[in-house]
Amino acid sequence: MSKQEAPADDAALCCSPVMREPLTAEQSAELARVFKAIGEPVRLRLLSLIASHAGGEACVCDLTGAFELSGPTISHHLKVLREAGVIEGERRATWIYYRVRPETLRAVSSALVPADAGTVTA
Amino acid sequence: MSKQEAPADDAALCCSPVMREPLTAEQSAELARVFKAIGEPVRLRLLSLIASHAGGEACVCDLTGAFELSGPTISHHLKVLREAGVIEGERRATWIYYRVRPETLRAVSSALVPADAGTVTA
Repeated sequence: MSKQEAPADDAALCCSPVMREPLTAEQSAELARVFKAIGEPVRLRLLSLIASHAGGEACVCDLTGAFELSGPTISHHLKVLREAGVIEGERRATWIYYRVRPETLRAVSSALVPADAGTVTA
Repeated sequence: MSKQEAPADDAALCCSPVMREPLTAEQSAELARVFKAIGEPVRLRLLSLIASHAGGEACVCDLTGAFELSGPTISHHLKVLREAGVIEGERRATWIYYRVRPETLRAVSSALVPADAGTVTA
């Protein structure tokens, strides 16, 4: 029950140096999929809540209190994050427990590092 | 002519540690705005083309050849990137020349670094 429906291709993500050479259409589609998933305020807050929750994992029962949204709406947003490979879920008894997939976040984070990362301009 | 219509709040972005503590609604809205802008394959390729172009800047005339899209469509995508603070433009004679705003990219990149960034899990 812990499998991704359509996991992100971490290898493709980590080899996408956005700032150093032009992305191919395939690379940009793969990366954009992750950014689109987190490019929504509720989903970004969910990601943050999961990542910072005790033990690094959280179930819907831990998350609903932070939002004025229904359980099904939150579950939908979690599904989008999961399908983009940003989080993964594992069912235990009644609940699915979600945790961050650090490999995906590390890959997209490093893809955005400016080419002049060695210098400080801000 | 080089001003952003609505620049990103770099200070807010860089103080949004997605992975270490729960984001506020305001922090998530600010960050999500940037991720949404780059969460589209054409825009991500445009960003990559600009960042890796000779001199670190490019005009629409340099970019249209990479896409089977009209000039106005590309200009629209550039406007979205600009309004999110990802790129900035400067008009010189006929053309607007775009370059990446590294401070925005650095801020959103660092916001995604997993809390366990010191360890290697993948």
